[in-house]
Amino acid sequence: MQLTLKKGILFVLSGPSGAGKNTLLNAVLEKVPEVYYSVSATTRPSRPGEVHGRNYFFLSPEEFKQGIEAGEFLEWTEFCGHYYGTPRRFIDEQLAEGKSVIMDIDINGAAQIKRQLPQVVSVFLLPPNLTVLHQRLVGRASEGEKAIRERLDKALCEVQALADYDYVIVNEDLHLAVERMKAIIMAERQRVSRIDCQRIIDQVTRGNV
Amino acid sequence: MQLTLKKGILFVLSGPSGAGKNTLLNAVLEKVPEVYYSVSATTRPSRPGEVHGRNYFFLSPEEFKQGIEAGEFLEWTEFCGHYYGTPRRFIDEQLAEGKSVIMDIDINGAAQIKRQLPQVVSVFLLPPNLTVLHQRLVGRASEGEKAIRERLDKALCEVQALADYDYVIVNEDLHLAVERMKAIIMAERQRVSRIDCQRIIDQVTRGNV
Repeated sequence: MQLTLKKGILFVLSGPSGAGKNTLLNAVLEKVPEVYYSVSATTRPSRPGEVHGRNYFFLSPEEFKQGIEAGEFLEWTEFCGHYYGTPRRFIDEQLAEGKSVIMDIDINGAAQIKRQLPQVVSVFLLPPNLTVLHQRLVGRASEGEKAIRERLDKALCEVQALADYDYVIVNEDLHLAVERMKAIIMAERQRVSRIDCQRIIDQVTRGNV
Repeated sequence: MQLTLKKGILFVLSGPSGAGKNTLLNAVLEKVPEVYYSVSATTRPSRPGEVHGRNYFFLSPEEFKQGIEAGEFLEWTEFCGHYYGTPRRFIDEQLAEGKSVIMDIDINGAAQIKRQLPQVVSVFLLPPNLTVLHQRLVGRASEGEKAIRERLDKALCEVQALADYDYVIVNEDLHLAVERMKAIIMAERQRVSRIDCQRIIDQVTRGNV
């Protein structure tokens, strides 16, 4: 019996770049039913291969500012001259239908969301150590040594936010990390506080003999 | 990286008789490493095949009463003229070593434990419906129809306690129920509140490059 949740669950995943958030997210989206990805909005130009509505909603600065005014973002930020934000509507709709939503977000965005939706489940993904992180960033080969250095310094700072999260996963092995994320999702779906207890009791006792 | 818990986790499993607690427990003990079974103490006579220290600690009424006086039980109760209780020492030792302990216990015992150890993780196991419960009890063939009737009435009453638990598992399929219990154990071991955050941060950042 799939338990009927009172509301879907929003999972937010944070962690320093190079921790493996995207790989983990994609594996979870592929393997866990009824979990949907929350697409962010941004005013930065799309990169080759990026698809509007799948990777991001690409908005003009005017559209984004109107969205902010209208309260359409669960959280938003400005970074390097571009806006980034989480459209509230998609998430509200999925949760209302009892579906789960997962998103990757930086620690400030996660904190903003936690203030608005205290039931959010926050997961912090860590690399086993910063040497591995360094290797992964170098392996991407998309950035120079200076940018990598900055990312490492940022990572050193970001991991201090760990204590504000509900769960931690150390990504030493992708398969294990995925199993752990799946376990967190499965366990949260079994939480008594998230289900309609009376409904379950009625279901179970309906077969009263 | 196996996260080092500040303390082991105590899992208590309740549910009406016939829900499948023993079968689930045995499967979990077999499959999940570092989870140990908490053996109860009782003054009832041992049944054929029962082993002291494995099924129960069989105590004399005098020994049991001395244990109560000395505060050696995490919880205890009297039922049908016999005492039943949970020795505190084994659990304290395992938890101090960072190991997890699992036990089956009735709803009153679970409530007593929750008052003393608020960090306990409580799981309620439900049969999919009372018809299945009835069939399982008949299938045991160890009790007459009157005893079964009493168990069913008790079950009807017990399921109302669901709201006091942390997690619920509906035992429609043993394999799935075991997977869910494993997920709960795995997820709880990833909880930030249960780990030494600074230690993890030090481990991760030690490889600072």
